[in-house]
Amino acid sequence: MYTPVSSKAPFIWHGGDYNPEQWSSDVWQEDFRLMKKAGITAATVGVFSWVSLQPDEDTFTFEWLDEVIAGLHENGIKVVLATPTAAQPAWMSQKYPEVMRSDEYGIRKAHGRRVNYCPSSTVYRQFSAQIARKLAERYKDHPALILWHVSNEYGGTCMCETCAEHFREWLRARYGMLDELNARWWTRFWGHTYTDWSQIMPPLANGEVLTHGLNVDYMRFMTDTQLACFVNERDVLREITPDIPITTNMMGSYKPLNYRKWAKEVDVISWDSYPRPNQSVGEIAFAHDLNRGLKDGQPFLLLEQTPSSQNWQAVNALKRPGVLRRWSYLAVAHGADSVMYFQWRRGRGGCEKYHGAIIEHAGREDTRVFREVSQIGAELNRLGDAIVGARTPARIAVLLDWESWWALDEAVGPMRDKRYVPTVSKHYNALYNLHLPVDIVFPDSDFSQYDILIAPQYYMVKPGVAEKIEAMVASGGTFVTTHLSGMVDETDLACENGYPGPLQKVTGVWVEEIDALYEDQTNTIEMAHSEKSYTCGRLADIVRPQTAEVVATYGSDFYAGQPVVTRNVFGEGQAYYIGSDPEIAFLEYLYRSIADRYDLQPVLGVPQGVEVTLRQKENKGFLFILNHNDQQADVALPDGIYTDLLTGKQWSDTLTIDAGDVAIVTASD
Amino acid sequence: MYTPVSSKAPFIWHGGDYNPEQWSSDVWQEDFRLMKKAGITAATVGVFSWVSLQPDEDTFTFEWLDEVIAGLHENGIKVVLATPTAAQPAWMSQKYPEVMRSDEYGIRKAHGRRVNYCPSSTVYRQFSAQIARKLAERYKDHPALILWHVSNEYGGTCMCETCAEHFREWLRARYGMLDELNARWWTRFWGHTYTDWSQIMPPLANGEVLTHGLNVDYMRFMTDTQLACFVNERDVLREITPDIPITTNMMGSYKPLNYRKWAKEVDVISWDSYPRPNQSVGEIAFAHDLNRGLKDGQPFLLLEQTPSSQNWQAVNALKRPGVLRRWSYLAVAHGADSVMYFQWRRGRGGCEKYHGAIIEHAGREDTRVFREVSQIGAELNRLGDAIVGARTPARIAVLLDWESWWALDEAVGPMRDKRYVPTVSKHYNALYNLHLPVDIVFPDSDFSQYDILIAPQYYMVKPGVAEKIEAMVASGGTFVTTHLSGMVDETDLACENGYPGPLQKVTGVWVEEIDALYEDQTNTIEMAHSEKSYTCGRLADIVRPQTAEVVATYGSDFYAGQPVVTRNVFGEGQAYYIGSDPEIAFLEYLYRSIADRYDLQPVLGVPQGVEVTLRQKENKGFLFILNHNDQQADVALPDGIYTDLLTGKQWSDTLTIDAGDVAIVTASD
Amino acid sequence: MYTPVSSKAPFIWHGGDYNPEQWSSDVWQEDFRLMKKAGITAATVGVFSWVSLQPDEDTFTFEWLDEVIAGLHENGIKVVLATPTAAQPAWMSQKYPEVMRSDEYGIRKAHGRRVNYCPSSTVYRQFSAQIARKLAERYKDHPALILWHVSNEYGGTCMCETCAEHFREWLRARYGMLDELNARWWTRFWGHTYTDWSQIMPPLANGEVLTHGLNVDYMRFMTDTQLACFVNERDVLREITPDIPITTNMMGSYKPLNYRKWAKEVDVISWDSYPRPNQSVGEIAFAHDLNRGLKDGQPFLLLEQTPSSQNWQAVNALKRPGVLRRWSYLAVAHGADSVMYFQWRRGRGGCEKYHGAIIEHAGREDTRVFREVSQIGAELNRLGDAIVGARTPARIAVLLDWESWWALDEAVGPMRDKRYVPTVSKHYNALYNLHLPVDIVFPDSDFSQYDILIAPQYYMVKPGVAEKIEAMVASGGTFVTTHLSGMVDETDLACENGYPGPLQKVTGVWVEEIDALYEDQTNTIEMAHSEKSYTCGRLADIVRPQTAEVVATYGSDFYAGQPVVTRNVFGEGQAYYIGSDPEIAFLEYLYRSIADRYDLQPVLGVPQGVEVTLRQKENKGFLFILNHNDQQADVALPDGIYTDLLTGKQWSDTLTIDAGDVAIVTASD
Repeated sequence: MYTPVSSKAPFIWHGGDYNPEQWSSDVWQEDFRLMKKAGITAATVGVFSWVSLQPDEDTFTFEWLDEVIAGLHENGIKVVLATPTAAQPAWMSQKYPEVMRSDEYGIRKAHGRRVNYCPSSTVYRQFSAQIARKLAERYKDHPALILWHVSNEYGGTCMCETCAEHFREWLRARYGMLDELNARWWTRFWGHTYTDWSQIMPPLANGEVLTHGLNVDYMRFMTDTQLACFVNERDVLREITPDIPITTNMMGSYKPLNYRKWAKEVDVISWDSYPRPNQSVGEIAFAHDLNRGLKDGQPFLLLEQTPSSQNWQAVNALKRPGVLRRWSYLAVAHGADSVMYFQWRRGRGGCEKYHGAIIEHAGREDTRVFREVSQIGAELNRLGDAIVGARTPARIAVLLDWESWWALDEAVGPMRDKRYVPTVSKHYNALYNLHLPVDIVFPDSDFSQYDILIAPQYYMVKPGVAEKIEAMVASGGTFVTTHLSGMVDETDLACENGYPGPLQKVTGVWVEEIDALYEDQTNTIEMAHSEKSYTCGRLADIVRPQTAEVVATYGSDFYAGQPVVTRNVFGEGQAYYIGSDPEIAFLEYLYRSIADRYDLQPVLGVPQGVEVTLRQKENKGFLFILNHNDQQADVALPDGIYTDLLTGKQWSDTLTIDAGDVAIVTASD
Repeated sequence: MYTPVSSKAPFIWHGGDYNPEQWSSDVWQEDFRLMKKAGITAATVGVFSWVSLQPDEDTFTFEWLDEVIAGLHENGIKVVLATPTAAQPAWMSQKYPEVMRSDEYGIRKAHGRRVNYCPSSTVYRQFSAQIARKLAERYKDHPALILWHVSNEYGGTCMCETCAEHFREWLRARYGMLDELNARWWTRFWGHTYTDWSQIMPPLANGEVLTHGLNVDYMRFMTDTQLACFVNERDVLREITPDIPITTNMMGSYKPLNYRKWAKEVDVISWDSYPRPNQSVGEIAFAHDLNRGLKDGQPFLLLEQTPSSQNWQAVNALKRPGVLRRWSYLAVAHGADSVMYFQWRRGRGGCEKYHGAIIEHAGREDTRVFREVSQIGAELNRLGDAIVGARTPARIAVLLDWESWWALDEAVGPMRDKRYVPTVSKHYNALYNLHLPVDIVFPDSDFSQYDILIAPQYYMVKPGVAEKIEAMVASGGTFVTTHLSGMVDETDLACENGYPGPLQKVTGVWVEEIDALYEDQTNTIEMAHSEKSYTCGRLADIVRPQTAEVVATYGSDFYAGQPVVTRNVFGEGQAYYIGSDPEIAFLEYLYRSIADRYDLQPVLGVPQGVEVTLRQKENKGFLFILNHNDQQADVALPDGIYTDLLTGKQWSDTLTIDAGDVAIVTASD
Repeated sequence: MYTPVSSKAPFIWHGGDYNPEQWSSDVWQEDFRLMKKAGITAATVGVFSWVSLQPDEDTFTFEWLDEVIAGLHENGIKVVLATPTAAQPAWMSQKYPEVMRSDEYGIRKAHGRRVNYCPSSTVYRQFSAQIARKLAERYKDHPALILWHVSNEYGGTCMCETCAEHFREWLRARYGMLDELNARWWTRFWGHTYTDWSQIMPPLANGEVLTHGLNVDYMRFMTDTQLACFVNERDVLREITPDIPITTNMMGSYKPLNYRKWAKEVDVISWDSYPRPNQSVGEIAFAHDLNRGLKDGQPFLLLEQTPSSQNWQAVNALKRPGVLRRWSYLAVAHGADSVMYFQWRRGRGGCEKYHGAIIEHAGREDTRVFREVSQIGAELNRLGDAIVGARTPARIAVLLDWESWWALDEAVGPMRDKRYVPTVSKHYNALYNLHLPVDIVFPDSDFSQYDILIAPQYYMVKPGVAEKIEAMVASGGTFVTTHLSGMVDETDLACENGYPGPLQKVTGVWVEEIDALYEDQTNTIEMAHSEKSYTCGRLADIVRPQTAEVVATYGSDFYAGQPVVTRNVFGEGQAYYIGSDPEIAFLEYLYRSIADRYDLQPVLGVPQGVEVTLRQKENKGFLFILNHNDQQADVALPDGIYTDLLTGKQWSDTLTIDAGDVAIVTASD
């Protein structure tokens, strides 16, 4: 039941992006030698190779790619084969200008950059299906081929006339009648009623950007349209190679694309992890758990990370010694079945020539980065298939919803900066700090498997979801939600009976007013049944409990003494409402106390900064012990003898882990 | 002689914007019930209803509006009827694209938002006159109709080819000969001489934006052109309903439109007051006095204010309890004959769905906001017609001039940020802090009725104004002006004989140089005849007194000891020149001492933060006592018995006013 | 051998921009009177006069200019005659729209502003050559004419289709084959390979801006194209007036134009010096030395500086008393043979009406500015031809390279803000603080004449330059370079063998990694052979010495103890590599110790803030003693009697110089 992504490669893949077309073939031989030395087992090729494979409309040049794939295969390296469709060739843009994207003013862009094609373009879709077919037919039986990597980092938006036309069709299908669209978009406001479908335009920057129903629908349309580009290629590949899994590399909490929808169309989730150099480990873990959640816990692939530094940040600090290794195992701990890098060899030109690579411009192997990568390669080789496909169990879920994010960011008021993802991440991080495993879930997820469901700023509640939450709570679960929740329906209309709309029943409150605090203002959360006090800020709901009890009250302002946190007993369970944005210490306090109700405990008791994460497979548990601190730590083990799969070392009672080190231990049989 | 705006509604109107077309008719009945409960006496309808009244070029649908107006009338609510022309229907933009506005690059915008019509468009003007005529003919005899509200918040600019053509005609009318235009715009600079009228373009962002005469003339043209749109509708309305007054809602110190010109065309000034949540009371009072000044002291209408919060600020804090009531009476104290809100009921969609409303999305009446509004309603009902039409006398005037503002902001040097309105407001606030009543005046006002005229940064002095000032001073008045005054003539040419140009005679100084100080730099104002010292900054004129005496000198820098404040005796009066930007304490000191010369005193002696403002009518005085502080205050009353019109309570000797409370007292007969 | 710019004017010119066409002829007479009074000896006329000289395509109106030039000549004032081609007349833009420039989106701008012509336009080139010819033919024999001033402040960029076409031709000439272009631009990256020349576009903002080879080549093309406009006019002028020198006014470290290339085409360097009011003297000196370096030490002309304030800064502070004079002699000390101003008389309109002028709007001569200018005029008259043409010897060179600047700013990573010129200036200023004379040199300069060559952030090392550096070092010189050096070749391809590329041999190091530090992070430079420690930051190379010895190591972080500064003995000389950005105190320490090796000493021993700079002519030395401090200073003179040429005063042993004062002393014969 725990199957690897590819039966041809039943191990944690180690590799990365490889762009051999940028180099002469003598460099390829050196690459193969060095890849083997570094323990590379998989290489992603073909990304952006369109013009190299199809230099004009009628010519195809696969010979160089044949040679590269053969070379990789001969050296024991598996191939992740990309379709090259993320950047159309210049000849295509020149001959068929409609393949180029238009900007937010509806003005066609010039050729260049990447992901600069109109996703509604028939020409683009035909050409991309054609090149996918050519690739599939040519390499379908190649023993090295383990994964299709369709295009690259889909994203952005297009507002050309073709997209406008497709959008109108999409709207007709959604709303049927124009009257219905007018009603759902509330177009009587400012006299914006459409009297003909042809009057509807994308939200052009110099046109209608204030009809939020339109804006949110355009984001939905754009997600669907780009997804259709993926499906267009996928269907060709699947037809020809039904046994080769298909993915496309995602970008974490990337706003323009609703990846939860995409997840249903890919065989395996894969993503590119580029935290800022100074990002916290908890935030990185959040992103991995988000990706694991996209397919409901199925392991994912880490397709890209930098082996040393990024290049496009304002300041591109190096990963400190050991960080690459520890963050690689962090990914694996949270569900990754691969450790891959962008890029193998730094290109000499182009805008990513200073992005980190395993082989830098000096072309040397006597470097810190090469040694660190090689160590990971050796360790993954030792690990074999032990943890491939293992799952990461969790009883607590945090909800993230792309459509709430879109609608919230469009909302004008009560405060400009909504901070949706940072807020979700803050709640996640409170649990991370408590060493409690968490799943990221979505409105269409099965909530019944969790004890606790947390939905911060869950702004747009679509039909049926409140009922699912009620059922989960009624049967004993705990639901937590906050300010800015339950405010609009699925077409961004404010809830008729006030906030939190359909969540009023389960939370037992309604919100009379929402105050907004300036950056330098705070209030406090005064606990009703203790002396405890916490700061809060940004927004302050004036909460009217209906059936809920008051857990905490505001400490100041004209609503001092009025409820800020409430708890509603509902069936066998309970629902909390948090009316303001608390400091994380409050969330840690609250979530620890709720977890007690379900006797949820950390996997192991460890000091702050040491992480212990469990992956499980066929009743076998693998404990990932990551020491993020810069001092040694002692970790008390449960009874038994444990083996560190990275070193083969055996531990019992107490495992001592060096500063920055990693261990993957499992109970000895 | 003190007549109400409408003889049909001789009371302080209480009401606001009502958009029934967004709701079904069963909601209307609930609205009428709640309006009566809240003491609403006037509703503004029809704003943005164009497409609801004219769904296509040949169809008119007034039936719903008939029903709404009938319902309001039946419930005793008067109607402010808007022409819906602030947002043309989509069908119009689609069929006649020239009705859409062009941006600052001359590129036509897409349909959407609002105030997005070309003000020069013949099509727009024909359609807007037509709908105004239809409305007037249909409702001309309706007993509920008390005011025409033409369009909504005119503003912005258009730079399309039609506007360019009209601009050239406007220029021909102004300058006659192209040579004259070239001379007045100083086009020899950078070789910009026009050799044909057709070469003149609006100040397109990617074209000629550095010919300041052109820029200022384009602002004049745009004010005139939009005003012509107003007059176009007004004339139709006036023809059909000569007895119904006509207004359009203004926006206070809104730069693009010279409201002083507009004031001459409206029957009554009305405006929408949206201070930032953290704006000072003095700044709000300044805005009301500006509106009262536009028609030389005639009472104005407060047509919009939020009952709770705005939604388009970065942070939209709630009005604290009592603030709505106190700020409403603040408006009345400064000359408003109405207390109205935007909006009655929050729409469920659109970009203002989180703007404050009397009825929020929950649709409830058991809210703080509803209670506060209802209290105001009850009080205004009690007030009746007592203060309607009453005047607010003042002996001190502060000058504001839109054209100086425009020209100053265009000027490159001596400092980028000119802060024209904040500077005028600072001088106003010095007087406000001294509890001295002030009128805001304009270059074409009658100065002779004032003891003191203050003209800060009065940059562009047009022909005849200096002479009016000289006359006012010669007959005993005091004139005060500052740095950045008298620098250019009416076509933005620098004054030939130096600064302050035509104000040199009355001030008795010339300015040799202007120094500019960095944000963190200051100088001091050292009083010549005392030990007093004040800080100043931003700009520092090096002032050369001719006939003036030195009042204060700079304390530091290479011009230490040189004059910063001078006083020139001129005829029976005097003129002050302030060469730098002083702290407000200096202005308070200076204006207190000047006021002594005329024995000008506060209406009552009150502590800081308590405001007493007088409205007078037929020799009866109404004292508005506003306690802006958060503690109770005692106010010493003149001899006699005083009745608080809001409570009926009587006071003598000392009136005690609660924190945040308001009283309107008048001597008992 | 030391010849003046013009034999007709063998003195330090004193004058500035004069725009008589903005004024009536009676003002001209007043101008001449005041010019003589102020000691003005040269006036620049004709800048921007195109429409005044050619009001339509077929009409020329030189009569007014005849009169002006005659008037100047009669009053003993020489004429710098500008071609008026920096702003084409409106009629030309109207009739030939292709003369207008396009913006970075390829969209044609509207007429207006200045330098708004397409430099590739045939029409523009024909008209500009025609007007240059007319001017030259008319005034070729005029005795007052001393210099041609072609156009004005060339700059900016154009991305129109004409430029695109010319760019493709330029590229064909450079690369010959499209394959070669693809290889040098590394277009395989992101699939950007061109398959036809016609696919190449300028780096349009909405198109291909990430192919850095393209971007750098476009900057080269744009420099060449604008230079061709200059040469187009110059060749006409030279043909008709072979004895009149020709220049165009440059703008110092102005990024878009590679002035080193321009220097080869002008007869004399001239430039406009506009430091920020709060800029340091060392930074101003750096700019002058840069201009002197452009023609390898030949004296240059200071054509513009403000006599009082600028107007286009955010804050335009006045030059304090004495600053104009001291900064004027600072220019002369560093190689200027003129002291000229923008502008003679403030225009009454236009965007520079508040720029400083000798005659302000008041039109008065009893002003501080007029007095200061007049003093300079009198002093320059006294100086006569004494120092005209004198040279400024230096044994130390600092390298500045426009193409490294361009490429570095395009580079994405390792840190966004490269600070190229500030870094070069910082190294220069360390030497300035040590009172050591410096030449600014360029990659094509002769390095062999220097003891020390410093090349900070010398990013793009073109073929042959490393060899020149090696030769200079081998024969005993010292070379210093830093992080961000030697990273790319001439087409912006990263060096194949790592950094610092071709400088590895002479420096004896290679760089394994580059760390980037956040703004608030620092490291330290710990000297190997002393207790000294200095801070450093921004970037930190991890340096691997090959043949170099370690001079200093990092004090912290994971590379603590690893080299940050190295020294490589190479032949008779040595080469330093500085891996991080040190505080200036380190550079002062290092450069003082290197200077010791060559026994380089300040011209005179003086306290900080007092500058002594030497100009030499025919074995006669002129010491410019500038007291930038606000207290008097004593300067110890060498043996002998010295005469101050400004005052005639004689000094021996010790010269006492007042706060802010200037002396130019020479040994008495």
